[in-house]
Amino acid sequence: MSLVVQKYGGTSVGSVDRIKNVARRVAAARERGDDLVVVVSAMAGETNRLVALAQEICDMPDERERDVLLASGEQVSTALLALALRATGHKARSFLAHQMRIRTDNAYGKARIKSIDASRVRQSLRDGEIVVVAGFQGVDEDDNITTLGRGGSDTSAVAVAAALNADSCEIYTDVDGVYTTDPNLCPAARKIDHISYEEMIEMASMGAKVLQIRSVELGMKFKVPIHVRSSFNDAEGTWVVEEDETMDALLVSGVTYDKDEAKITLLGVPDRPGLAAQIFGPIAEANVVVDMIIQNASAAGTTDLTFTVPKADYKKAVAVVEGLESIQAKGITVDSKIAKVSIIGVGMRTHAGVAARMFKVLSRERINIEMISTSEIKVSVVIDEKQMEKAVKALHQEFIENQAAL
Amino acid sequence: MSLVVQKYGGTSVGSVDRIKNVARRVAAARERGDDLVVVVSAMAGETNRLVALAQEICDMPDERERDVLLASGEQVSTALLALALRATGHKARSFLAHQMRIRTDNAYGKARIKSIDASRVRQSLRDGEIVVVAGFQGVDEDDNITTLGRGGSDTSAVAVAAALNADSCEIYTDVDGVYTTDPNLCPAARKIDHISYEEMIEMASMGAKVLQIRSVELGMKFKVPIHVRSSFNDAEGTWVVEEDETMDALLVSGVTYDKDEAKITLLGVPDRPGLAAQIFGPIAEANVVVDMIIQNASAAGTTDLTFTVPKADYKKAVAVVEGLESIQAKGITVDSKIAKVSIIGVGMRTHAGVAARMFKVLSRERINIEMISTSEIKVSVVIDEKQMEKAVKALHQEFIENQAAL
Repeated sequence: MSLVVQKYGGTSVGSVDRIKNVARRVAAARERGDDLVVVVSAMAGETNRLVALAQEICDMPDERERDVLLASGEQVSTALLALALRATGHKARSFLAHQMRIRTDNAYGKARIKSIDASRVRQSLRDGEIVVVAGFQGVDEDDNITTLGRGGSDTSAVAVAAALNADSCEIYTDVDGVYTTDPNLCPAARKIDHISYEEMIEMASMGAKVLQIRSVELGMKFKVPIHVRSSFNDAEGTWVVEEDETMDALLVSGVTYDKDEAKITLLGVPDRPGLAAQIFGPIAEANVVVDMIIQNASAAGTTDLTFTVPKADYKKAVAVVEGLESIQAKGITVDSKIAKVSIIGVGMRTHAGVAARMFKVLSRERINIEMISTSEIKVSVVIDEKQMEKAVKALHQEFIENQAAL
Repeated sequence: MSLVVQKYGGTSVGSVDRIKNVARRVAAARERGDDLVVVVSAMAGETNRLVALAQEICDMPDERERDVLLASGEQVSTALLALALRATGHKARSFLAHQMRIRTDNAYGKARIKSIDASRVRQSLRDGEIVVVAGFQGVDEDDNITTLGRGGSDTSAVAVAAALNADSCEIYTDVDGVYTTDPNLCPAARKIDHISYEEMIEMASMGAKVLQIRSVELGMKFKVPIHVRSSFNDAEGTWVVEEDETMDALLVSGVTYDKDEAKITLLGVPDRPGLAAQIFGPIAEANVVVDMIIQNASAAGTTDLTFTVPKADYKKAVAVVEGLESIQAKGITVDSKIAKVSIIGVGMRTHAGVAARMFKVLSRERINIEMISTSEIKVSVVIDEKQMEKAVKALHQEFIENQAAL
């Protein structure tokens, strides 16, 4: 008998019929003998409806009250799923954040889980009940309600699995698992059977929006095997687990892309110590997250400095640097028609030349590389967004489809 | 500076515009210098929407999960009102039941408040915040969510006022106050300025559905002055307070009616000890509430026994008594076309002959009295429902309109 945590997203519980469907799946798993804890998101559309209500009242809703409002969505879906499970003849009991003391810090809207008191859930399981947990929500030390940010129910599920020392955490979604790249862009994309936590973190942050990054970090920390799978069939999905030897055999596990960044270049900046701090300090203070940074020293004692920020924030970032007269830039250029393409794989740790091979492929396709950034298990390039699809397809063919030839 | 608890019902917070309107009223009171605690119901229609969702899943939803579901409605309106108050430039903070520890027993769907920990609310008031409290909900000793039953937010408000020792509890509603009788039925009806808790309890239980009875009981116990008033204007409404001398001057404060009962008569039952227990024990076990009971001894050692039950339950009650073969009734008759009309007033305690005067009025109007029941401050009669309106008007004229002549 295993203890399994299952998480169902908003689409899976988007209507009464779908909730009944989830209940049937959970009941079937229970009948196979597993102990089950089910974490649910709000019904699809509900969070947006609540956000719209708040927006009707004011443009910038107070974050504490906004979290109280949003947490009601998971309260509804949790109660409804518990009712649906009882209708299948099983015992079931819902738990909200304050009832199982999912303690977080008090960063409303993006809180982080600090601890979970699993004792009541354990008692409920001993009583033969299926436990249904409201995802996305927590309470801080003063019992204020907090929420975990978009995708936060994934993190709730993995945290609950860690607290209960569950055998696995199944994340049900509307896709079959994690793919080697976006199947909509590249028909040759295929489902990954096993991927390491580290790779998954890079995949998630690069735009494969299957799992909230924080949930994978938690899974890695507490060694929770995460199984990403479809809520529409019983096929095995993708296991996110600890790195093992079989993974090393693959140089590259996935090819990802991101079109949500813009590139800002400061031209002819005097090249002196402290320059980067002078620029990126004020940008950080403006709450703009900088991704890649590249600095090219030039001959005449000046330098061109390029960095990328989320497209939604690039005007704010430009306003900040324009206000920095002390840096004496000769000019500022902005390009929002860029794309970042990355290859990710733990195999790179032990194999040299992966980056060079990537550049060769892009060169062959006549794709100009504007920026490069590398990490232990990832190489990213910034290119013209018009060439993104071609780049992804070529890299996927080179590193994934042909990897048997390695 | 006073501490005032205000309660707004579902209609008053039924849309974003109405919530903004409530916020303006509360803000105006705050600007006059009062400390304010505002208790809100769910937005009109929300509770019904949630009940319908539960019904789609199963006919008899588990009561614990149903309460989790329903409590989300007040969570939404509470957060929205706090946001709207902040938008008026005031500090505001929402409190759910678990945050201010509104402890109840665990009778889901009809829980009773046992205690409230007011310390956090007091701190919030000291911090200059307007406190917004979710009505209708509580938590039992194990932190399970409970709800207080229909109209429960009234009780939340009075209980919070008692816990804070507030100067008054204002119940905002869509009428101007408590009337001497139903104005729709009797145009001469007029608003009552002051009414005692005892009278209000009789009025509420008789069908003047302005306040949940439990809230008046609590107000009486803790001497909380309750002010029932309109949320659409600033006029004084009805004060529900301790009995004083001025009230005694009025023989009758109100005339009420109730068409929701049916009358069941057991004919020719052998008249012996233990008969009533034999009949009403099984009816109570079937969860049917019996209101009036009348037994007439007859000559031949048998008796006719008549009682009233809610119309919705009379078939259930008949089925129960039909199953009781040992009582040997000669027959059972049912009449659901009845109405109960009552006169209520603390003045009756010290004035004899009120009942006789009531019967005289009905006799003059040629209205046949089928049953009579009296208490210290009330006389009720059951009559043919076709004659109800005539009876109410005649009694109102006799005891209210003409009372200056006493």
